[in-house]
Amino acid sequence: MSLAKPPSNMGHSMLDFVRDLQTTICDSFLSFENKNAFFSDTWTRPHHSGGGISCIFEDGSIFEKAGINISSIEGSFQSDTEKAMFLNLLSQLNHSTFDLDHATYFATGISLVCHPINPFIPTVHMNYRYFEIQSSDTTIWWFGGGCDLTPYFLDTTLITQFHSYLKLACDCLDRSYYPHFKDACDSYFFLPHRNEHRGIGGIFFDYLQSNTQTHYLDLVKSCGSTFLESYLPFIDAHKNTPFTHDHTQWQQYRRGRYVEFNLLHDRGTKFGLQTNGRIESIFMSLPKHVLWTYNEDLLTIHHLDLLEVIKSPKCWL
Amino acid sequence: MSLAKPPSNMGHSMLDFVRDLQTTICDSFLSFENKNAFFSDTWTRPHHSGGGISCIFEDGSIFEKAGINISSIEGSFQSDTEKAMFLNLLSQLNHSTFDLDHATYFATGISLVCHPINPFIPTVHMNYRYFEIQSSDTTIWWFGGGCDLTPYFLDTTLITQFHSYLKLACDCLDRSYYPHFKDACDSYFFLPHRNEHRGIGGIFFDYLQSNTQTHYLDLVKSCGSTFLESYLPFIDAHKNTPFTHDHTQWQQYRRGRYVEFNLLHDRGTKFGLQTNGRIESIFMSLPKHVLWTYNEDLLTIHHLDLLEVIKSPKCWL
Repeated sequence: MSLAKPPSNMGHSMLDFVRDLQTTICDSFLSFENKNAFFSDTWTRPHHSGGGISCIFEDGSIFEKAGINISSIEGSFQSDTEKAMFLNLLSQLNHSTFDLDHATYFATGISLVCHPINPFIPTVHMNYRYFEIQSSDTTIWWFGGGCDLTPYFLDTTLITQFHSYLKLACDCLDRSYYPHFKDACDSYFFLPHRNEHRGIGGIFFDYLQSNTQTHYLDLVKSCGSTFLESYLPFIDAHKNTPFTHDHTQWQQYRRGRYVEFNLLHDRGTKFGLQTNGRIESIFMSLPKHVLWTYNEDLLTIHHLDLLEVIKSPKCWL
Repeated sequence: MSLAKPPSNMGHSMLDFVRDLQTTICDSFLSFENKNAFFSDTWTRPHHSGGGISCIFEDGSIFEKAGINISSIEGSFQSDTEKAMFLNLLSQLNHSTFDLDHATYFATGISLVCHPINPFIPTVHMNYRYFEIQSSDTTIWWFGGGCDLTPYFLDTTLITQFHSYLKLACDCLDRSYYPHFKDACDSYFFLPHRNEHRGIGGIFFDYLQSNTQTHYLDLVKSCGSTFLESYLPFIDAHKNTPFTHDHTQWQQYRRGRYVEFNLLHDRGTKFGLQTNGRIESIFMSLPKHVLWTYNEDLLTIHHLDLLEVIKSPKCWL
């Protein structure tokens, strides 16, 4: 069995949700994508319990590379590095004195990154996860996740619509969520060395635990379920938009920022590498073809409107 | 004036050396490379003293991207991050109690990375640098540097010759250097998450200070001066070696490891980003076209001999 069996009711409910969402998204993508570009990869963690199912599209008709990954893992804290990392993490939740030596953890989530071929269709990232740490007398749990867009050219109508869907999904639970999560997304996906944001934002949250588990499960369900209706319109609108080598150069150049963010800053990548996670799954997020130039003048296209909104995030609604 | 004026005789001598070496290498490259692919970029550090001269080849006949960069910078330690970083560095030199509040630094060096178009010509990296920290009563100085090769296909004859030249250059100063620096190179250029070395090694050293300044200047001169004779044979031998799209795919895929190393592990990159260094110069080292695949089976070429030597470094001499 690749997916770890959840130790709690909430673990079960979350795992059911991410499995269903993975199936729904893959079925939807398979309705328009080349079936030969698709494969599913079930993996288990060596020396650990649990694993995941990665659904990949590579060299398709729409996606250059896309991954829809779910995982369900459990274990105890073994190395000192692992313990130090989790204590640091628990300090964010005011539990820095937790005894990790006799605790177990369980985590499940879905993680999606799509890098389309057509430069007019944005790259999209989505991730929803549930974490549980259990000692003899205490259980600590939290939810995290988000969804955000990295366009290469701006279709402001569809971007506004993308944010509307996310806002609607958040509003169902609490009207204060969207503005809060939107700001958190802008702050998180920031490359200080470029003084640029990774894309045009979306929502981002982590360490959610102050309300009930059911409340947050409803939140990630609401957000996860709006993914297709928020993203598919970009594919519908632009899958046949003509593009040239110059558009692709610009796309590949901007994708370099995606790699820089993920390798230099992304918490998920750091976490994965520090806990000896599965490399293929961690780096699933990296675009296929990427370009770094010393001399930006060699690019014939510079989409200045994009540069403006990634320098200072705007309110899309 | 872009290059900072050295505060010491050794600083002057080192700067003279790196300027001369840059000129020699650029002249040599220009003798066979497309002149339109070359440009020279003189820059100064905003809010700081000093700068550099970057000589770049991009989209040439031999080099997809190559940079030969020199810099000469000076200043005082301003931010707490900067001070903490340097104190950490000074602890390597047994000077962890140094008073950085009233100190100034000077650094000069040459840094070269060449990413050729032909996958049968290896990527090469070379860097020699001199550092000086001065307080009212003490001067701390050290030398660092090295040269190493990242092939995509193995030409064992030329690789052995490359190592011979480096050994010879080191032997002129001390016969214990090459084996020591070769091991240090293998240890340093290692990607733990891939369990792979970046390439087939070369030499690497840092914090050299136990002998005289003149001794180490002679060492970096000896090593730097052997660069062309150690690397040009790869270009001569393989500039006309036929290659296909499949060879290039393999090259671009392996280049991904180069990016991973430089963004995740390279001290120079970390140092540059943490000290608000010049992004174009720091990322000059990144290859132009890079590829990440989830499914390695999509690559039709897997050069297994290469994978073997980067898993466990061998002795080339």
